[in-house]
Amino acid sequence: MDNSKQPAMSFSFSVSHTDGAARAGLVTTPHGTIETPMFMPVGTQGAVKAMTVRMLEDAGAAIILGNTYHLWLRPGAELIARRGGLHRFNGWSRPILTDSGGYQVFSLANRRKLDEQGVEFRSHLDGSRHVLTPERAVEIQACLGSDIAMVLDECPPHPSTRDAIQASLALTTRWARRCQVRLDQLRDGATIDGLRPTNPGQVQFGIVQGGVYADLRRESAEALAALEFPGYAIGGLSVGEPNEVMYEVVGGVAPRLPAAKPRYLMGVGTPADIIEAVDRGIDLFDCVMPTRNARNGQLFTRQGPLNIKNARFAEDDLPPDPSCRCYTCTHFSRAYLRHLYIAGEMTGSILNTVHNVSFYLDTMRQIRQAISLGTFAAFKHEFLRQLSLKAFTS
Amino acid sequence: MDNSKQPAMSFSFSVSHTDGAARAGLVTTPHGTIETPMFMPVGTQGAVKAMTVRMLEDAGAAIILGNTYHLWLRPGAELIARRGGLHRFNGWSRPILTDSGGYQVFSLANRRKLDEQGVEFRSHLDGSRHVLTPERAVEIQACLGSDIAMVLDECPPHPSTRDAIQASLALTTRWARRCQVRLDQLRDGATIDGLRPTNPGQVQFGIVQGGVYADLRRESAEALAALEFPGYAIGGLSVGEPNEVMYEVVGGVAPRLPAAKPRYLMGVGTPADIIEAVDRGIDLFDCVMPTRNARNGQLFTRQGPLNIKNARFAEDDLPPDPSCRCYTCTHFSRAYLRHLYIAGEMTGSILNTVHNVSFYLDTMRQIRQAISLGTFAAFKHEFLRQLSLKAFTS
Repeated sequence: MDNSKQPAMSFSFSVSHTDGAARAGLVTTPHGTIETPMFMPVGTQGAVKAMTVRMLEDAGAAIILGNTYHLWLRPGAELIARRGGLHRFNGWSRPILTDSGGYQVFSLANRRKLDEQGVEFRSHLDGSRHVLTPERAVEIQACLGSDIAMVLDECPPHPSTRDAIQASLALTTRWARRCQVRLDQLRDGATIDGLRPTNPGQVQFGIVQGGVYADLRRESAEALAALEFPGYAIGGLSVGEPNEVMYEVVGGVAPRLPAAKPRYLMGVGTPADIIEAVDRGIDLFDCVMPTRNARNGQLFTRQGPLNIKNARFAEDDLPPDPSCRCYTCTHFSRAYLRHLYIAGEMTGSILNTVHNVSFYLDTMRQIRQAISLGTFAAFKHEFLRQLSLKAFTS
Repeated sequence: MDNSKQPAMSFSFSVSHTDGAARAGLVTTPHGTIETPMFMPVGTQGAVKAMTVRMLEDAGAAIILGNTYHLWLRPGAELIARRGGLHRFNGWSRPILTDSGGYQVFSLANRRKLDEQGVEFRSHLDGSRHVLTPERAVEIQACLGSDIAMVLDECPPHPSTRDAIQASLALTTRWARRCQVRLDQLRDGATIDGLRPTNPGQVQFGIVQGGVYADLRRESAEALAALEFPGYAIGGLSVGEPNEVMYEVVGGVAPRLPAAKPRYLMGVGTPADIIEAVDRGIDLFDCVMPTRNARNGQLFTRQGPLNIKNARFAEDDLPPDPSCRCYTCTHFSRAYLRHLYIAGEMTGSILNTVHNVSFYLDTMRQIRQAISLGTFAAFKHEFLRQLSLKAFTS
């Protein structure tokens, strides 16, 4: 593979404005920059469902997420490496973050077996056996060539006992160190079955665990901070705990992470969740909610979610969100989108997804602007007030 | 409904070049012009499946087809009329042709009952009873506001006896006249449950029937020509008869239709079918093949259809058709499209559809150019020769 064509930019992060604990900044990666706070649309299998690259670009997406578990099993990490990496394979030339595969493997429940070395599991596709170790998670992501890779962490179920969580985060910390060692080896010229990493500028983020226990979260944050990652994620949230508990954990962990490094809250969440987390110092987010809910006919608006299948929209000529400037809202009515949903037309899923992703990205733009103007508190107050009007609930 | 905003152009057709029986021309409609020969992508339920309006525009679509049967039953012709017509409802501002609904109703087989007045049937959606008469077909299409409406014709099954076909085409001719009368009434101010036609410039095409019987086709063509429609379709083909029979029928009928009017071959067909029909004097085509086959992973190329699910494409970095300049072929590889297909990703259906529709429309562009240069025979020869290489059959 010819890596000489890889962009030369290396990873960095700078904070340009703070407003309370909220911060606006810029992440630089080998495939370009990301203004933060930023939301990352999820491209599980190498494509954001029901969107093309051009639609993502038009919606203003700056970075997308790919799922290591899915891409490893199909079409295979080495196949993607032979194509030059995930960017060349899927045509997305801006930054990509990949998760470690751990979250999906641990969600296989009784199809997986954990020990110190790693986790053995059966594929959800064909039942075949695989072993995911911290080193293998690094290798797969090196094949994919994402700009930001995640360390393999154990994701204990919620609720778990304090003892189980404590043992788990200790394992996660040992695994984090092993991930660093393997990435260093690859940077020093080690190969993966003869293949070289497809993105030499790839960096690794550590993941803080610790469940809902403030002291364990602190212990995890400090242990990872000592490993000096280029960025940090908070994992194991949005798994069923009450929203207020999640906000409290985020508020406790974020200040204990190095201020000069980006902070990523994994798998979160609703627009309100994102705003609450930004208010506590988070920079990056991902969630399947905008894309999945779009396919189920739920459209996000400033006045709360609108269920397009509702009969009240059958003759409603307004766009989904009259204040939105996305392709869908500037061209199509609720009546038309309802018809497409009821008729089972794929074009409806496309248009709904375009809107929801645009809505999330526009919200992030407004958040960044408010932080840079020092008006984030007022923005948050007004955003949550409009949501509380619940315009679209019966 | 405010019809004052309707474009003022009225329907016309002119032939600019002929090359043998093939002709290049221009159809003018209230929503713009259509260079012919032209292919019309099928938007059954008001959307071309897996495409947005923007994608259709990018692919160069000049006119799309809507299905009266589907739109009548869901969301309802009157609902669309209250929105200002199909163009305003679905955001497609270029010409639209609607069929009469007959083809779908007659394909309901034992769910419908025919008499002189019309056809009574049960909806495939909910079993509800409806009656489609020639007058009702006109009214529904007047509600939809297509630029070209089709008369209601009886579509006898293939094969049918000569006597059955003869009786059927006589009925079709009587129905054609009733359609004209009803359209004239609407133009003179008649309303449909209080609603007015949404496109005052809408015209009606007659449909030639007669099965595979040359003399019956001639009889039908002459009877319809006497009714002086602004355009003529050939119906009842591509229903299971051998290709050569279809070509022969087209070659027999086309010269008997008024040369100054556009000729539309309904529901046809493969690229080779279209080229053969152009060679016999046809101007307009529609078919679900490019869109439906795309969703099934079949991609059209100059070297014949390529089944993207085939394992041989797993590591193939070429675009589907290296000579194609569509969005899909200029950005994505067979390997990636195969992955999306195997993984069941909707994005794969989108990209495949974009390619197939672009391929059809590019082929039409090449056909028009060849006719205008007087090189259609050579173009046809080379096109069919490349297809005969069958590059993608194992």
